Amino acid sequence: MAVNFKNKESVLEVKPWEKVGEPNTIIQIHDKRIVMRKFKNPRTNKVEEFYQFGTTPYACIILPLNTDNEVLAVKQFRHGADKILLELPGGNPKTPEQTPEEVAEEELFEESLGHRAEKIIKLNSEPLWFNPATFITPFHAFLALGCRQTEESFKLDQGEYLELTKIPLKKWLAMCTSGKIVDAKSMAVTFLALDNIGLKIT
Amino acid sequence: MAVNFKNKESVLEVKPWEKVGEPNTIIQIHDKRIVMRKFKNPRTNKVEEFYQFGTTPYACIILPLNTDNEVLAVKQFRHGADKILLELPGGNPKTPEQTPEEVAEEELFEESLGHRAEKIIKLNSEPLWFNPATFITPFHAFLALGCRQTEESFKLDQGEYLELTKIPLKKWLAMCTSGKIVDAKSMAVTFLALDNIGLKIT
Repeated sequence: MAVNFKNKESVLEVKPWEKVGEPNTIIQIHDKRIVMRKFKNPRTNKVEEFYQFGTTPYACIILPLNTDNEVLAVKQFRHGADKILLELPGGNPKTPEQTPEEVAEEELFEESLGHRAEKIIKLNSEPLWFNPATFITPFHAFLALGCRQTEESFKLDQGEYLELTKIPLKKWLAMCTSGKIVDAKSMAVTFLALDNIGLKIT
Repeated sequence: MAVNFKNKESVLEVKPWEKVGEPNTIIQIHDKRIVMRKFKNPRTNKVEEFYQFGTTPYACIILPLNTDNEVLAVKQFRHGADKILLELPGGNPKTPEQTPEEVAEEELFEESLGHRAEKIIKLNSEPLWFNPATFITPFHAFLALGCRQTEESFKLDQGEYLELTKIPLKKWLAMCTSGKIVDAKSMAVTFLALDNIGLKIT
């Protein structure tokens, strides 16, 4: 589409595309799949095919603060990034029935190596997106306040090796704004939690 | 792995996994692929297979501010999220030779419908990750200052319909912290730009 922009503020008004038929899973390996979905182009009325990535129905990411106002961050080797990274705890539903709130509580407990929160607050009303162009799995953001270590034992997911790192909140924020944290979902969830932890951007 | 956590702060020390052999593309459809990579588990010395998503070698996301201190945001229908979303401009290299700086300049120009910046600043030194567990494509973050509409014309990517939305910076930040912006990469890049635009979290 060749477009001549003369102080225009849009290239044709944006309209929703209507989904056509059912999604078609092209390939599925463990929990990873490529799905083909058809949408009708609202300009041309032609049906077009889109290939997208999907995993579980959704994911949950949690910003946990303990009673010393430290962020409970998780250090893990990440096979997609091919390096050890520091991230917020998070994970996926293990059964189709699990609600985001249940997943958040469970993942916080497991990935913080046994912490429980006094209060867990859901931060988003609309689903959040890792990459809304290509990835059909959304995520939900939670803030866990008043986290305390418990003595309960549990089972980690297979192959999940992790270290818990306690980082003072102010330092965690500085790590997010200075590029030391490189995980976009952890940064986004922290950003979304600012209001609830009484912080402002000035 | 059953683990009994008694005030422990780690489940075995985190070590890097060594990549074994070459990545194997299981399927590729247009620019989307599932890649199998083998890594040696540093605990067991067993070689394990990981299936990961990949697109182009990297992506670039830009926070553009115009001379009125407005964010140039892009409204688009997103087929992964299946809805119209407001995001920062961004995109992928069109040729293997393109540097992140060149991609950022080009995508800013195209997606802001003809704006050019006075100055473009790369915000990250390490690559950023949409989802470092499963997605091998990283992204780079840029801040574009002093953006001005030009009269130059150009070609948008096929099927790219978008509206440019100019949002005062303070309002954009409030949209990020209140959950009105739901695109994690846009939120992460905004967070990373705070220092450079003289804003602080207090």
